Amino acid sequence: MQQYMQQAIQLAKSASSTGVNPRVGAVVVKDGRVVGFGAHLKAGEAHAEVHAIRMAGAAAYGATMYVTLEPCSHYGKTPPCADLVVESGIKRVVIAMTDPNPLVSGQGIARLKAAGIDVEVGLLESEARTLNVAFLRSLETKRPYVILKTATSLDGKVALDTGDSKWVTGTEARRDVHELRASVDAILTGVGTVLADDPALTVRLDRETTEPLRVVLDRELRTPLSSQLVRTANDVPVLLYTTSDDQTKRDAFIERGVELAAYTSLDAVLQDVYARGIGRLLVEAGPTLVTSLLDGRFVDEWVMYQSPRVFGGKGGFYRSHHDGPLDAINRYDVQSVETVGADIKLIMREGESDVHGNR
Amino acid sequence: MQQYMQQAIQLAKSASSTGVNPRVGAVVVKDGRVVGFGAHLKAGEAHAEVHAIRMAGAAAYGATMYVTLEPCSHYGKTPPCADLVVESGIKRVVIAMTDPNPLVSGQGIARLKAAGIDVEVGLLESEARTLNVAFLRSLETKRPYVILKTATSLDGKVALDTGDSKWVTGTEARRDVHELRASVDAILTGVGTVLADDPALTVRLDRETTEPLRVVLDRELRTPLSSQLVRTANDVPVLLYTTSDDQTKRDAFIERGVELAAYTSLDAVLQDVYARGIGRLLVEAGPTLVTSLLDGRFVDEWVMYQSPRVFGGKGGFYRSHHDGPLDAINRYDVQSVETVGADIKLIMREGESDVHGNR
Repeated sequence: MQQYMQQAIQLAKSASSTGVNPRVGAVVVKDGRVVGFGAHLKAGEAHAEVHAIRMAGAAAYGATMYVTLEPCSHYGKTPPCADLVVESGIKRVVIAMTDPNPLVSGQGIARLKAAGIDVEVGLLESEARTLNVAFLRSLETKRPYVILKTATSLDGKVALDTGDSKWVTGTEARRDVHELRASVDAILTGVGTVLADDPALTVRLDRETTEPLRVVLDRELRTPLSSQLVRTANDVPVLLYTTSDDQTKRDAFIERGVELAAYTSLDAVLQDVYARGIGRLLVEAGPTLVTSLLDGRFVDEWVMYQSPRVFGGKGGFYRSHHDGPLDAINRYDVQSVETVGADIKLIMREGESDVHGNR
Repeated sequence: MQQYMQQAIQLAKSASSTGVNPRVGAVVVKDGRVVGFGAHLKAGEAHAEVHAIRMAGAAAYGATMYVTLEPCSHYGKTPPCADLVVESGIKRVVIAMTDPNPLVSGQGIARLKAAGIDVEVGLLESEARTLNVAFLRSLETKRPYVILKTATSLDGKVALDTGDSKWVTGTEARRDVHELRASVDAILTGVGTVLADDPALTVRLDRETTEPLRVVLDRELRTPLSSQLVRTANDVPVLLYTTSDDQTKRDAFIERGVELAAYTSLDAVLQDVYARGIGRLLVEAGPTLVTSLLDGRFVDEWVMYQSPRVFGGKGGFYRSHHDGPLDAINRYDVQSVETVGADIKLIMREGESDVHGNR
C-alpha cells in the first residue's frame, strides 16, 4: 500500500542529519492499522526498524513492515535489523530500495526470505532514492554532501574595497544560516576567513541544537590562539588541516583541544572528513576556498543569499575566470528562490548529475 | 460602492502603457446595474469616461459614475471629460483621487458641481494612487518611469573576458524581455551596446504589439550606418542623442530616418524623452550606462535575470565601487523572485520612496 511507504518516507525526512548513514523510515501495519513506526535519526543510534518494532510490540506478529531501505544484515554500530524483523514475527516486508552498498546489497532480503517472510521490493523506489540522494552520491565519491553558503551583493561582492563586510545580509538571512548550520555534521572554513572575521561557527538559535564539528584549512597554522574557534575548542570540537611540522606551534593547538590533521589537497580533506563520519558539510568561507570548491565541482548544493544592493569594487566571491565558450560553463539547477527578510535566497544543486554521483 | 471602484481600477490596469498619461478606469452604474465602463488605453485616444458614457448611451441619464481620477476640465488632445459627464445626464460622480497636477486639480470637480452633480471624492484613493505610482513620480521628476533590465551570471558578469556574451540567459528569459519591451514607450541603450551586440531592440512576440521608440546615447556618432537600428529606422523610430556637430555625419543619419537630439547629460536626456511623451522607459545597456543610471538613482524598477552560472573575470555590470559604510548603500525593495526557464528573475524597486517621488 503506497500510503504506508509514503508515510515511511516522511518519517525518514524528520532526521536533520544522519551523518554518513542513509535516512530511513519504517511503518508496521496490521489489519489495516498502523501499529508502529520509526525513523533513523542519528548515526550510532537505533535504526528505523528497531523503533517501529518496539512500538508495535506483540502486534508485530503477523504484521507487514513498510521500510524505505533494505534492512541491514550485518553488525555495525547496532545489531542486524533483518534478525530483529525475523524475531518479531512480521510476516511480510515491503522495501522501497535495496541497500546501495554492493558488498551487502540483497543480503538483508535473503535473510528475511530464508526465514519464510514475504518480501516485495521497489514500491516508491524513485522517491526513496531522492530521499537519500546525498547518501548515494557520497557512497560513490567518498566525500560528504557539500553545501556551499555565500552571502553577496547583486554584483557578487562579499565585501567593500574598504574591507567592510559586516553585514552583507540582514538578521533574517543570518538566522536562516544558523538553521543551516544546525542541519549539518560539520562546517568548513579557511584560515583567511578566521583571520578576517574571527567567526565562532556555532549554532545560535532559540532552541536546543547539536553543534557541528568545525573544520579549518590552515596550511601554515596562522589561526590565532586567541581566535573564537580555538578558545571554544574544548566545548565544540575543532579539526584543523595543516602542512606545518612546527611542533611548538602544533602543541599549542593540541593543548587547547584542537585536533590536527594533515593537509594534502582539498579532495583529500573532503574524503578524510567523510571517513570521520561527516555526511553533510557546510562551507562558509572566503573567495579562495569558494573558488577552489566551485572549480573542483565539489559543491553539491549552493545556498546563495543576495542583498539587493550593489557594492562594486574588487571583492567578488569568485576569483578565477572561465574562457568559455559560454554554453560550456556549468549551470546549477535552481531548486528554490524566495525572499528572507529584505534579502534573496537561492537554493541550487549541481546540475546534470544523477543519484549515482555521475556528472 | 467599493466594488464598482475596484472594477474601475481593474479596468485601468488593462492598459500596457499610457505614455505620460495616468491610467484611468470608469464604470457607470444605474439601478444597481453596470450600464457602461471604459479605460484610458493610449495617449491621444479617448479617456475612460468617454468610453464608459458611450457604452451607457441613454442609460447614463440619472446614473452614477465611478472613476479612478478626477475628470479633466481642459482641452488637451481630447475635449474635457467633465463637460461630457454633464451632458450625459449623469447625476452623481464618485472619484478615487483628485488630479495630481496642481494647476488643474479640483477644476473638474468644480465643473461637475456647478452643473448640479453630486460629487464624492476619496473612495479607494490609496489603491488609485498605487495604480499611478509611476505617473505621479514622473509628474514630480519630469522623467519617465525607468525600468532597468540586466542579465548576468551569479557573480554579476554580463560577458566572459573573451567577450562572449551570447547568450547569458535562456530562451524563456529572453522571451520575457520581449514582453517587457512590449509594455514600454521607449527602450534606451548606449553606443557601446550597439557596437558590441548590434541589437534590433524590437518586440518579437507571437502576437501583434506596438513597437517602442528606440533611443541611443551616442555622443560621437559612432553608431554604424549598417547597424540594425539605423537600417530599420524608417519602420521603427530611432532617436539618437549626440554632441557631434559633424554635419556630414548628421545628415547621413537623418537621411536614413534617424532623429537626432542634443546630448547634454543623462538627466537631461531623461527629461527630454519624458517631454516627448515617453512615460515608461526600458534600459537595455552595457556597464557604462548602467553604472551611470544606478549611481544617479535614476532606476525606478530593476528587472534582473540571473543565469545560475559563474563566469568570473572582469565583465561585471557595475563599473564603480562604494566606499561604504556598508549600511549606507542603497537597498532595493524586492518585489518578486521567480524562475523563468532555468534562470532566475528578480523584480526590484527603488527603495524608501513614496508616490510623490521623494526619496
